[in-house]
Amino acid sequence: MSVANATSDTGYDAWLRYDRLPAGQAEALIGWCSRIVMPEREGMLGTVRRELTAALASLLGIEPVVTDVLDADADAADTPGAGRALVVATAERAAGLGLLAGEEAGALHADGFVIRTVRRGDVRAVLLAGGTARGLLYGAFHFLRLASIGSLNDRALEQLDIADRPRNPLRMINHWDNMDGSIERGYAGKSIFFRDGKFIADKTRVRDYARLLVSIGINALTINNVNVHETETKLITDELLPDVAATADIFREYGIRLMLSINFAAPIQAGGLPTADPLDPAVRAWWRERAAAIFRRIPDFGGFLVKADSEFRPGPFTYGRDHADGANMLAEALEPFGGIVIWRCFVYNCLQDWRDRTTDRAKAAYDHFVPLDGRFKDNVLLQIKNGPMDFQVREPVSPLFGGLTRTNQMLELQITQEYTGQQRHLCYLVPQWKEVLDFDTYACGEGTTVARIASGSAFGRETGGIAGVSNIGDDPNWTGHLLAQANLYGFGRLAWNPELSAEDITDEWVRLTFGGDPETVRTIAEMLLDSWRIYENYTAPLGVGWMVNPGHHYGPNVDGYEYSKWGTYHFADCRGIGVDRTVKTGTGFTAQYHKPHSEIYESLEQCPDELLLFFHHVPYTHRLHSGKTVIQHIYDTHFEGAEQARGLVARWSGLKGRIDAGRFLQVLRRLEEQAEHAKEWRDVINTYFWRKSGIPDARGRKIY
Amino acid sequence: MSVANATSDTGYDAWLRYDRLPAGQAEALIGWCSRIVMPEREGMLGTVRRELTAALASLLGIEPVVTDVLDADADAADTPGAGRALVVATAERAAGLGLLAGEEAGALHADGFVIRTVRRGDVRAVLLAGGTARGLLYGAFHFLRLASIGSLNDRALEQLDIADRPRNPLRMINHWDNMDGSIERGYAGKSIFFRDGKFIADKTRVRDYARLLVSIGINALTINNVNVHETETKLITDELLPDVAATADIFREYGIRLMLSINFAAPIQAGGLPTADPLDPAVRAWWRERAAAIFRRIPDFGGFLVKADSEFRPGPFTYGRDHADGANMLAEALEPFGGIVIWRCFVYNCLQDWRDRTTDRAKAAYDHFVPLDGRFKDNVLLQIKNGPMDFQVREPVSPLFGGLTRTNQMLELQITQEYTGQQRHLCYLVPQWKEVLDFDTYACGEGTTVARIASGSAFGRETGGIAGVSNIGDDPNWTGHLLAQANLYGFGRLAWNPELSAEDITDEWVRLTFGGDPETVRTIAEMLLDSWRIYENYTAPLGVGWMVNPGHHYGPNVDGYEYSKWGTYHFADCRGIGVDRTVKTGTGFTAQYHKPHSEIYESLEQCPDELLLFFHHVPYTHRLHSGKTVIQHIYDTHFEGAEQARGLVARWSGLKGRIDAGRFLQVLRRLEEQAEHAKEWRDVINTYFWRKSGIPDARGRKIY
Repeated sequence: MSVANATSDTGYDAWLRYDRLPAGQAEALIGWCSRIVMPEREGMLGTVRRELTAALASLLGIEPVVTDVLDADADAADTPGAGRALVVATAERAAGLGLLAGEEAGALHADGFVIRTVRRGDVRAVLLAGGTARGLLYGAFHFLRLASIGSLNDRALEQLDIADRPRNPLRMINHWDNMDGSIERGYAGKSIFFRDGKFIADKTRVRDYARLLVSIGINALTINNVNVHETETKLITDELLPDVAATADIFREYGIRLMLSINFAAPIQAGGLPTADPLDPAVRAWWRERAAAIFRRIPDFGGFLVKADSEFRPGPFTYGRDHADGANMLAEALEPFGGIVIWRCFVYNCLQDWRDRTTDRAKAAYDHFVPLDGRFKDNVLLQIKNGPMDFQVREPVSPLFGGLTRTNQMLELQITQEYTGQQRHLCYLVPQWKEVLDFDTYACGEGTTVARIASGSAFGRETGGIAGVSNIGDDPNWTGHLLAQANLYGFGRLAWNPELSAEDITDEWVRLTFGGDPETVRTIAEMLLDSWRIYENYTAPLGVGWMVNPGHHYGPNVDGYEYSKWGTYHFADCRGIGVDRTVKTGTGFTAQYHKPHSEIYESLEQCPDELLLFFHHVPYTHRLHSGKTVIQHIYDTHFEGAEQARGLVARWSGLKGRIDAGRFLQVLRRLEEQAEHAKEWRDVINTYFWRKSGIPDARGRKIY
Repeated sequence: MSVANATSDTGYDAWLRYDRLPAGQAEALIGWCSRIVMPEREGMLGTVRRELTAALASLLGIEPVVTDVLDADADAADTPGAGRALVVATAERAAGLGLLAGEEAGALHADGFVIRTVRRGDVRAVLLAGGTARGLLYGAFHFLRLASIGSLNDRALEQLDIADRPRNPLRMINHWDNMDGSIERGYAGKSIFFRDGKFIADKTRVRDYARLLVSIGINALTINNVNVHETETKLITDELLPDVAATADIFREYGIRLMLSINFAAPIQAGGLPTADPLDPAVRAWWRERAAAIFRRIPDFGGFLVKADSEFRPGPFTYGRDHADGANMLAEALEPFGGIVIWRCFVYNCLQDWRDRTTDRAKAAYDHFVPLDGRFKDNVLLQIKNGPMDFQVREPVSPLFGGLTRTNQMLELQITQEYTGQQRHLCYLVPQWKEVLDFDTYACGEGTTVARIASGSAFGRETGGIAGVSNIGDDPNWTGHLLAQANLYGFGRLAWNPELSAEDITDEWVRLTFGGDPETVRTIAEMLLDSWRIYENYTAPLGVGWMVNPGHHYGPNVDGYEYSKWGTYHFADCRGIGVDRTVKTGTGFTAQYHKPHSEIYESLEQCPDELLLFFHHVPYTHRLHSGKTVIQHIYDTHFEGAEQARGLVARWSGLKGRIDAGRFLQVLRRLEEQAEHAKEWRDVINTYFWRKSGIPDARGRKIY
């Protein structure tokens, strides 16, 4: 889509815009890419062909010729681009053509790719080779990414030598979509899969979504909510499997395996059995039979995602069994077909008495799963949320990472902004995720990062990965807030390679989405990178979390979860605030970490400011490392945060005329709403603590 | 229904059980009532006949003979009951029979009745005479009430001389039922009128409900929610009027006029007009045409109830008109047919900024309506909630009572327990209502009570009355909590005669519902009469209100409405709590009252304890008239209230075996839930104030 028809630009194309490149940038690419050499194929290779030709046509304003033959004899030697081509081939074929050494071809990761300038006789070619067709898909999108952001000038094309492969075996999206069309914690419209209890017949949106996902390296997804209600329980029955298969067919073209969230009580609800006991032979037989039926229709079906014995979902506890019994039973059923079980660790006591200060929700997942370490089958993965609570704006890393060493693990991140502004506020989460991934658990000494544990490499596990809870819906721009597209993009890029820097990912995304104008790139990148801290500033302070309205979780409510059953407390009184999770005087949660974190968090002196109230109950007059008292920190950050939110409006407004009016205005409206709402946050939080502590703001600002 | 088939007794018959009287009590009645003299008639007289014969048959185990003739010649003189009869007649006919003096008959109020032992020759009769057929209905139910509770022994029957009439022209129920079947603020199941956007075809429940209402003197009702959504807007269109008429036909048999809540924007939504401006001729013509259409189908249609320019409902403000313009326009349309307009005064700024302490929701209704006093047509009534806020457990009386003197008024009470336990807690509201009705506004000197203002008598108005928001639904026992039936009963009795004492009404209801066992009567009556204070004890203290969860309004949440837009604040900080509504330093609300209330409420020394925090912001250490500090009062009442709630379980349990198991158990379950929930209230409120104030309980009890 060009800037010309800009006022109606909704952002639907996201980062796959392929806006026409300026002539200067296009020239070299035209020379190299007017001819694409690849045998026509069905399936994923057909996808590669379609994507490349359409994208290059759009970027370059040419109609690339696709041929089977590499040799350029037909071309006159003085034609521009004569003798040059883009050669697209699997590693095996590239080796056969003599463009890739046999050894290198054999060593190429199935999902990996090479992009390299090669020469054979008169022919000079850009070789795009993939370990498999899926690797080629990733390579093609990488090539197009480089082309789109203007990195492929003549000089670069002459000496391309890129090799890449994903660090995580599983790079997955979890949808929390219900078949009625609603999305649990969805903030961008309704489901693109379901409506009124049925699959949506028109699959245009699903296909466009698959393109977006494969372009960032996603290779698996679940399409239904982990809270599997009665309607969705039927997804694994013969009644709905044809529909599931039709959707799987689409994702398959893009190298993405479809999985399903299942209801542990399905044998009862859908199978008519009297029990769902995982050790009951009839139950096991039922699941085996279901697995066989699913794989008959969907040969590359991924497997099951399970939320069991969690927030009132059914599970093995009902039958006196444990999570390993439950997960292994399903794993056994899927094993013959290559399917996996992803078992969520979000398990805690949901009927906590707020009067009881000994129970600590933060401890629950570790207490449940560490004793089971080593008991799960090889095709089971435990999916662990990044923090011990639930996707707050700031939490420590879950101690399950480092606690489990003999179990396949996945890191679960929440792309949808449940507690971080619900896509009405700008909150770019890549910097947060980077902190999580880079966190060193010290489980096997220095360097045992969460990234290495999740990928499986830290403990030599066969599999592992990262899952993200989807932030998309059927809004025209997919994510409600246009800039929230960056969270999906960044998630995929980090799942591909957790070592990418937040800055690089951000720069890529801005250029792909808004073009290369330096002022635009700098401004938006800075806005994104600042936004998490800004959101944290005006919301719950110092890692304590949960100061939101119950139920929908939007907007400030300091005591909203304070007298509830959910284990979510701050214990603010007229003297101080925070949760004592120390071993010495509190719940003992700090002991779930390895040294030095166990000691750092235990220590009031060493605990990082931003997590202070997560680990300690302190007086408002406690002095932070920053030199400020807790109460003054609260006041200052909230005044600052609201001011910064206002600043976002100003920064964005400065881009007027540099961005098409359609996208400029939709973002402006959201930022204006955020600025207003940030004031509400500022005032509710400050007033609450001023009323509670009686300590005035040292700078004498207006508090109500 | 007898106690024999008791375990399945749901309480459906409510206070119209007509359980068989003990032989000793029945004997005299059998003598007088075996023969009923009344000409058969259709309509209301038919109803009287059916009710009397069925009830007497059930009470006495006889089949009363109904004859046209008074003379008893046919009876042998020595037959028991010979020469005696129950004569049922309108005043006019009674005078014709020589049983009532012509002057008395002529003076009898249309809705009034006489029950009197009379003699004509050999015939001795109990005369039941009504001013009209409707008066006879009320008289019949009064007679049956006396019979049911065993008041009509031989001696009493020999010398009956009762005359009664309603004190309020309008005695009305407001349903907040939606056509989808839901009920706004309903806690007893779904609507008995509507389901899935249609009228329910089976009218059994509607008829039984009409019997309950007429038996307590109700003479009008609205069947649809004052928040008139799009579906209900159509109730006044030709599409739905036949259904409305069918329902009106049923209520008519019981002397009850049907009315409808209307949407002020109906000319646009249902009429296709471009405006709903009350001064627009086309709009006025549309309403006139609609009124004519309604009255063609329902000749005794009551009129419209209107919530306009209130909580986002449309109204005349949109067109720069005022409430008088809006109400009078509707009144004009209804006037030719005898219809009325009831215009609600629940109008306030629903988008208040909690940071602004000058705006006071309590002042809003007075500020809106007093300037319009005298401008409303004679067939308009303003319906005023008992308090200036919204049906809290404790509020002062609305200053509109006494503020308006040249306008017809109705008192609006809430029978459904929105803020008073939602029929899961026992909270008998008759004592609260009595306080409201007996409140002396001093508008015309001493004795200008709310009861007299509402009825119209204080200012010589032609009409007036009391409306109650219904607490019934399609639960088997109508009201969810069986004992909440007493609220509906008590409402009707007070609407009939506000001078009845709470004790007498309660005693009546308990005897009708649970029979005459003295221990049972005493226990239940005391439980009822204590329950409001108990509920107040463990919920929001000292008149401050609003410490509930937002939205559904159930359960404790001290700050739930503190940082919201609804004008519902307590301003608690570490030093004190309460809303300063004084003229001297606060919002000036106290000035809306006449002396001495304006002075009493203004004065920190004179203000009654139970309303202290409604009118004043005080330190927690402020000493009440009771001698306790505010904080100690909070602690003490909450410990006491939870203890009292537990006591209700014990008191009820003591009735085991004295009440049929069906009704015994359903009440027991509710009381147990209440006791548990009262502990939650106690702990949340006490902990909140302990944390906020830092002042320990003087008695050292456990606070969390």
